[in-house]
Amino acid sequence: MHSELIKDKEYQFQLYELLDTQALCGRERFSEHNKETFDAVLDTANKIATEKFAPHNAKADANEPTFDGEKVTMIAEVQEAFDAYVQAGLLAGRYDFDEGGMQLPETIMMASAGYFMAANPSTTGYPFLTVAAANVIRNFASDKIKSSFMPRMLSGEFTGTMALTEPHAGSSLADILTTAIKTSDGEYRIKGNKMYISAGDHELSKNIVHLVLAKVQGAPAGVKGISLFVVPKYRLDNHGQPSERNDVALAGLIHKLGYRGTTSTVLNFGEQGDCHGYLVGEEHQGLRYMFLMMNEARLGVGFGAAMIGYRAYQYSLVYAKDRTQGRIPPNNKPTDKAVSIIHHGDVKRMLLAQKSYVEGAMALCFYAARLVDDSHTLEDEAQRQHALELLDLLTPIVKAWPSEYGPKANDLAIQILGGAGYTREYPVEQCWRDNRLNPIHEGTNGIQALDLLTRKLWQAQGAGLKLLQQRMQQDFSQIQGPACQSLLKRLHPYIAQMAQLIPALAQGLANDKQPILLANASCFMNVFGQIVMSWMWIRQANVAEQAIHQTDLSGDDQAFYRGKIQAAKYFVHWELPTIARDLSLLSELDDSCAAMHSEWF
Amino acid sequence: MHSELIKDKEYQFQLYELLDTQALCGRERFSEHNKETFDAVLDTANKIATEKFAPHNAKADANEPTFDGEKVTMIAEVQEAFDAYVQAGLLAGRYDFDEGGMQLPETIMMASAGYFMAANPSTTGYPFLTVAAANVIRNFASDKIKSSFMPRMLSGEFTGTMALTEPHAGSSLADILTTAIKTSDGEYRIKGNKMYISAGDHELSKNIVHLVLAKVQGAPAGVKGISLFVVPKYRLDNHGQPSERNDVALAGLIHKLGYRGTTSTVLNFGEQGDCHGYLVGEEHQGLRYMFLMMNEARLGVGFGAAMIGYRAYQYSLVYAKDRTQGRIPPNNKPTDKAVSIIHHGDVKRMLLAQKSYVEGAMALCFYAARLVDDSHTLEDEAQRQHALELLDLLTPIVKAWPSEYGPKANDLAIQILGGAGYTREYPVEQCWRDNRLNPIHEGTNGIQALDLLTRKLWQAQGAGLKLLQQRMQQDFSQIQGPACQSLLKRLHPYIAQMAQLIPALAQGLANDKQPILLANASCFMNVFGQIVMSWMWIRQANVAEQAIHQTDLSGDDQAFYRGKIQAAKYFVHWELPTIARDLSLLSELDDSCAAMHSEWF
Repeated sequence: MHSELIKDKEYQFQLYELLDTQALCGRERFSEHNKETFDAVLDTANKIATEKFAPHNAKADANEPTFDGEKVTMIAEVQEAFDAYVQAGLLAGRYDFDEGGMQLPETIMMASAGYFMAANPSTTGYPFLTVAAANVIRNFASDKIKSSFMPRMLSGEFTGTMALTEPHAGSSLADILTTAIKTSDGEYRIKGNKMYISAGDHELSKNIVHLVLAKVQGAPAGVKGISLFVVPKYRLDNHGQPSERNDVALAGLIHKLGYRGTTSTVLNFGEQGDCHGYLVGEEHQGLRYMFLMMNEARLGVGFGAAMIGYRAYQYSLVYAKDRTQGRIPPNNKPTDKAVSIIHHGDVKRMLLAQKSYVEGAMALCFYAARLVDDSHTLEDEAQRQHALELLDLLTPIVKAWPSEYGPKANDLAIQILGGAGYTREYPVEQCWRDNRLNPIHEGTNGIQALDLLTRKLWQAQGAGLKLLQQRMQQDFSQIQGPACQSLLKRLHPYIAQMAQLIPALAQGLANDKQPILLANASCFMNVFGQIVMSWMWIRQANVAEQAIHQTDLSGDDQAFYRGKIQAAKYFVHWELPTIARDLSLLSELDDSCAAMHSEWF
Repeated sequence: MHSELIKDKEYQFQLYELLDTQALCGRERFSEHNKETFDAVLDTANKIATEKFAPHNAKADANEPTFDGEKVTMIAEVQEAFDAYVQAGLLAGRYDFDEGGMQLPETIMMASAGYFMAANPSTTGYPFLTVAAANVIRNFASDKIKSSFMPRMLSGEFTGTMALTEPHAGSSLADILTTAIKTSDGEYRIKGNKMYISAGDHELSKNIVHLVLAKVQGAPAGVKGISLFVVPKYRLDNHGQPSERNDVALAGLIHKLGYRGTTSTVLNFGEQGDCHGYLVGEEHQGLRYMFLMMNEARLGVGFGAAMIGYRAYQYSLVYAKDRTQGRIPPNNKPTDKAVSIIHHGDVKRMLLAQKSYVEGAMALCFYAARLVDDSHTLEDEAQRQHALELLDLLTPIVKAWPSEYGPKANDLAIQILGGAGYTREYPVEQCWRDNRLNPIHEGTNGIQALDLLTRKLWQAQGAGLKLLQQRMQQDFSQIQGPACQSLLKRLHPYIAQMAQLIPALAQGLANDKQPILLANASCFMNVFGQIVMSWMWIRQANVAEQAIHQTDLSGDDQAFYRGKIQAAKYFVHWELPTIARDLSLLSELDDSCAAMHSEWF
């Protein structure tokens, strides 16, 4: 029905008008780049995603991988797509030139990833997990492990996974039971079961490099006793080639609701007592290493949720312009011509809500990606540290907000299509199913809410929060247009209420009100999320309101900017005020949930 | 994991404590019944649903019906379940004794339906659609049509469908193109295409009786020119037996996201010019007849959505009591024992939200079913009329509220199960998919919002609304317990604001603010829905608060009533205040949606 995965103008706006991504080229690490090289990367990503990923998105969903007890089989298009991704050099996009990389900023890597997530999230899982695993090895593993695995992962010969969850331990990693016993040669023998391991088995690569959390004998209890190991599916011979099968067995595939093309696996390590693992970094430091990967993965989950949302939004938009149904007063006689459904107010509402969710989420994710770049490449160390502090604070909502509102957007896309939306003959229901994974994986949104309320808010003496307030203040002080002024006036009281609430939260968390606040953690995440997203929307509307006065604006651009201003208005008028409830519940210390007894259900 | 489809105590509470369903036995029509006969019907329904419907719910989902160009094939369990339903006499449950029925009240029929919806909504589609079609024939068709089709439908030999939607006309029935040409023998020849026809073809019965909307030649334009026809798959011979194939062809099956066991069909009528149809009632009155069926179907959709919600709620509840994960302060050292997740505040929140949605929706649906009974069997004609007026007003939210909040409940059930919730190895994701149909079919929730705001609110000079206010006032005046008093205090300002708003709405709909109000129709439905549901919850809490002082209460009952009071508190504290936003948007006449241009997207 339409071929463009992501509107060019949207990305140009997000990357170069809203964020001055081109300014990154002034930094030493990116000095060989310019807007043209960035755009060339995006063009390549768009082309491969459009030609190699999008066409088999539905097919991979309808024909999920199977396991015959020996091998995993999947449709051939996945391999072709993976190979095309590898050949474009995208796996090593963020690495140094002398590592064979392209030394690209995170912001551009994320934008490139957007095309793949919009096109086919499940096939995209294979390369993305590989990059994530390679990052951990690059940052924390010994030179020996690095040289054995990293080049082959970046060339796509080997793929990667992160093997954290166990059947009895998901959110609670403190309770993992997988063990690692040190051998005389400095290796370890791994034994345990892992579950829900994405891309945990397949035939796309010559080897699969599992990053496995396990406990060394005698380790302290809890998360402080977790170590991280590289555990390949095939052990390497003296030439670094995959040779003997390591003792890692696929116990079975799990059948998911969405992302059906990405294998989800149950893996048994060391059933025969001969699973070789190689320690990453130091013993007992595994969770810290894994959290680097996890934090990146959380940005990726948020952004992916936004892009799956964006894809169905675009589809429902084209559908709404095309499909005629009913009439609008005063021309609502049966003999009047039927109108496209986009002219019905309630359909506009559903489109505007989607737009505000997915483009807002996109702006937030790019903002976070820029913080990653800033934390790596700003000249001043204190500035780099600030970027990291702000990023830390925002990470829970960068993960949770898009993964809550992306699926909401998909739900509205289905509703716009009506009966068609509900059928597998149309693509939006798959988006909705695929996106349902995102509120759960890489830490459920409930966990994100607790992380925000009990940790991130107070981290480094609340440095992140202060920075956030400064950044918002700075942006707001530059606002001149009347549309944005008016939105700002609506936002201010909520910001003030949140600020007022914070000391009370600190107090409550330290006294006997703690159980109530923990039960109401989602309320604070709502408050924080809607305020940050209002900021993101006012930022967009401000750029649009300035741009709209340019004299040489094309009609399309004019309409684009008007849409941004209207979506900001929608968000601030319709979505922001929902937090009045949350602010009350938090300030009243409402105990409706905390006081519920399990036997009363 | 658990075997009980619906908790006995819940139904006993809903039917006999909250509504005095046993009082119906005092009415002439139900005078041969008593609580024991009602409960016997429910026991039978529970038994058949548990033994014949629930076991193949997942199997029917995984093995949807196929069409080989000649016949539709489905798993054998569907036929067995259908036959068991028929044999129990449930198809004719609401009909007169002398029609072979059981003369049961609608309230009991709905309660009985609840077991089937909770057990297996897609197999349930076949008998339920048959009953719905039989009702229309019974009420409006000639004796000849009635005697030809009705007995065979009530015995399950024939099944039924409602064939309204066409490829280009769903919500806009005014635009249907199917035609009916009268022949010299008083029959009609039907020609046209229908789409999304549930149970439109299968081999479960000897014949399928389609109720088809079509336009007689020369009919007025729009809905005033629609007539209703009985169109059987097989024409009847002189003995009333199915003989020749009528010219109704299955063009293909549509593949849905949920309810996968119920065939969804594209049907071609009269491709060979020989599709015989029999007029129901008079020409051009078809929509009126169909709306009887539609209104009943809307109650059924709402109740079904509630029960699918209930099923997953129960599952997630048992899971939350069973699954251990993490610790709770102050016992949150790694060496402390892990707790069942039901003890985590955020999990309690998700369970309480589900409980408030599905048990609240159940109370609303039973309330509506009772109004159906009252409209048929109250002695006083004016009282019967009042019941009908109130039912008319409530119908849009009886359909829309449970079908919006049932899926929300399912979403929370998935979230509680975490990774498991997302997999087809656990049942909650199917509930979520099945329930996604309900906000769309029998009139999308957007259509319901428009129906409420532009029609039902003002119908019969606002008689429904006045009755609603009286009924609420009457219930509230009887409240004595402090818990309910406190909830009432929170509800009152919202009721006052809604009452204040109504005249402004009437005015706005009649002037140039109409487009804004149409675009914001969902806001009014939110306001109306949350207020009505708060009423439903305070009604429940009131009964519970009275009951809790009984001295001979068992521990289980004590816990049950505590749970009702706590859920009412949750609903009024957490869910009701969300309408503050909607009340503002309506009173401010916010034009964020209405003012959006289609080219700005």
